[in-house]
Amino acid sequence: MGDEVVAVSELGRRAKAASRLLAKASTADKDAALLAGADCLETDADVILAANASDVARAEAAGTSAAVVDRLRLTRARIGAMAAGLRQVAALRDPVGEVTEGWTRPNGLAITKMRVPLGVVAIIYENRPNVTSDAFGLCAKSGNAAFLRGSSAALASNIAIAALLRRGLVASGLPADALVLVTDTSHETAAEFMGLRESIDCLIPRGGPALIASVLANARVPYVIDGDGNCHVYVDASADLDEALAIVVNAKTQRPSVCNAAESLVVHAAVADAFLPRVGEALVDVELVGDDRARGRIDGMGVATDEDFGKEFLDLKLSVAVVDSLDEAIDHVNRFGSGHTEAICTRDLAAAGRFTREVDAAAVIVNASTRFTDGEEFGFGAEIGISTQKLHARGPMGLRELTTLKYVVTGAGQIRG
Amino acid sequence: MGDEVVAVSELGRRAKAASRLLAKASTADKDAALLAGADCLETDADVILAANASDVARAEAAGTSAAVVDRLRLTRARIGAMAAGLRQVAALRDPVGEVTEGWTRPNGLAITKMRVPLGVVAIIYENRPNVTSDAFGLCAKSGNAAFLRGSSAALASNIAIAALLRRGLVASGLPADALVLVTDTSHETAAEFMGLRESIDCLIPRGGPALIASVLANARVPYVIDGDGNCHVYVDASADLDEALAIVVNAKTQRPSVCNAAESLVVHAAVADAFLPRVGEALVDVELVGDDRARGRIDGMGVATDEDFGKEFLDLKLSVAVVDSLDEAIDHVNRFGSGHTEAICTRDLAAAGRFTREVDAAAVIVNASTRFTDGEEFGFGAEIGISTQKLHARGPMGLRELTTLKYVVTGAGQIRG
Repeated sequence: MGDEVVAVSELGRRAKAASRLLAKASTADKDAALLAGADCLETDADVILAANASDVARAEAAGTSAAVVDRLRLTRARIGAMAAGLRQVAALRDPVGEVTEGWTRPNGLAITKMRVPLGVVAIIYENRPNVTSDAFGLCAKSGNAAFLRGSSAALASNIAIAALLRRGLVASGLPADALVLVTDTSHETAAEFMGLRESIDCLIPRGGPALIASVLANARVPYVIDGDGNCHVYVDASADLDEALAIVVNAKTQRPSVCNAAESLVVHAAVADAFLPRVGEALVDVELVGDDRARGRIDGMGVATDEDFGKEFLDLKLSVAVVDSLDEAIDHVNRFGSGHTEAICTRDLAAAGRFTREVDAAAVIVNASTRFTDGEEFGFGAEIGISTQKLHARGPMGLRELTTLKYVVTGAGQIRG
Repeated sequence: MGDEVVAVSELGRRAKAASRLLAKASTADKDAALLAGADCLETDADVILAANASDVARAEAAGTSAAVVDRLRLTRARIGAMAAGLRQVAALRDPVGEVTEGWTRPNGLAITKMRVPLGVVAIIYENRPNVTSDAFGLCAKSGNAAFLRGSSAALASNIAIAALLRRGLVASGLPADALVLVTDTSHETAAEFMGLRESIDCLIPRGGPALIASVLANARVPYVIDGDGNCHVYVDASADLDEALAIVVNAKTQRPSVCNAAESLVVHAAVADAFLPRVGEALVDVELVGDDRARGRIDGMGVATDEDFGKEFLDLKLSVAVVDSLDEAIDHVNRFGSGHTEAICTRDLAAAGRFTREVDAAAVIVNASTRFTDGEEFGFGAEIGISTQKLHARGPMGLRELTTLKYVVTGAGQIRG
């Protein structure tokens, strides 16, 4: 990882070669590499901090916003958290080699389905340099080479972190190229990177709508989209309104900037009079926009257009709609939702059953906050993202979602008649 | 399905609307539609045969090859086989609603993972009109609307078949648009079809390399590639040579035109003298090409270039390589294979273990013919194709591979702290 610029295709070949070795590495060796990497990060934290200081100075000189600079900035505590993350992943169960199913055919062929690494997992990400460490940890534990392309703003930080993690790999007898960082972060190489079908087995973009749009337009490699969360809470006619209010407040305000925060509230007309004024009081710091029937029940509420109903605000803003039936609620959610997380508050078993069956989303939640759609909250120990697509992985992606399955068929000379 | 040409985007919207209804249809209703469709095909076989006769006449007038015309031609027996296929799929277990996993979190949240339909499954296919019926059957049983685009050569046949299957849907109370056939089969609409992200949840192309290349270049919808099968049989130093010979002959000659036929033989040097002359005798009708060491052991064998080793012949032709070790065999297979099916003949447990772990393919087979990689042979009852990609589905795709998973989370008012 010196100063020379290596062609991105050659970097891909190096990652691919390393992936063959990593795929057959033992769990013990992979864990040792993660622990050694964690130690290297802490031991040489000063090296990372110095590199990061130059990134931060460059960003500040360029007039970057304080919020973006904060995401870029590392501290000793943040480096400690990166190391702790690697140690946490090392403690998780290795998904590789898990036999998910097995059966024997009438002709005696024994068929098993076994989890194996994908190969090379490519991640494109934005300013946070901790993703370099977090993504590497999940990829390495699941037997995949990590082929990483961060932002140019974080380049010095990423180079420093990658060099230390590669040192940890080598110390554990694994190939350094199990982590390959792309250092040419020009726009021209982005499309080339997304087109490396020979090298990349799966691309996971971690970023905003512009990055996702670029992947949809330019990627020729298989990818998993971690997309928007335009999440709804639907308060049914039979909801416990105290419980529903607590869920709406939590889903909207506990952390408004994340994808599993609620962006829209849908209320059954039968409880709108009783419920909406309480929402107005509880969410006094939240900008509310709604349809005509919602606006009639909360003073000063703005008008919600279809564009508002379709939008992930990621802010203290909530769209509100009133519906006459469960059918109308389901139609509204399916029309405006982004397929991430949709919640219903109800005491009616049939309503809960219909909502969970008929709403088309990665996660459907009955009587709890949308904020629970998360790898840690689901018990996966860590997550690489939350898929909003239907193929391969849907919802929070942990180590298992970084694997594929292979059929292993064992016979005794069978031929086909 | 009249004569008017409807825009492909509007057809997509119709399929999407129907998919919402089909997703919540009962197994009994879906099965009734398949059985009714099967009856319609047989009752009105004359209508199909008349339409097909016009397709065949058009193809013959255009000088189409006899082999292609044969794929296009329907007979009463072939229509009977289509109907039987629908009845067979109706008898399979419905994958929708299967709970694949479930657990409870410390906070009491109950999480289950449930199989649900993908939504709209699009299939692009070539001349065989029976795919219209076969693909519809698998899509409908798994709760998906089928959005079908066959070739222009089979258009009249496909229109007749689709109309009858739609009649079966309506007779069973399901929406006719659970099967939507694209009747504008011009080249211009192909790219538009592959770009309908609002409508298509999964595209499965069924055709040759030109179609696959077009999908890779043009598709903006999620897809599953049913690609080449450059399948190898590796005969290890410890193989039972009688058994290995039977497997090689079966894998190469039992049906050479299909993707799970063997295209390449790799032999360990320790048994090359004993084995290769027997291969030459047993495969006297097969054109053999090989590397220098193979050619020294079989008279008259041609030279195999790297291009030959990388090629799916789909014919009575086989490439042959001699290797000095299991490592070399694995490297050769991973270099030239297409990730479909790879077999080893061995009596050595460690060799079988290493081959199955380290070879990167959808199916790895020990001591049996490569021809077994098939939905029916694996026990799935039917298959929509064989995926050579790693995401979503890998290997034979049955009904389950036409579904996605949804997290259903049930709480009692939990909010996130």
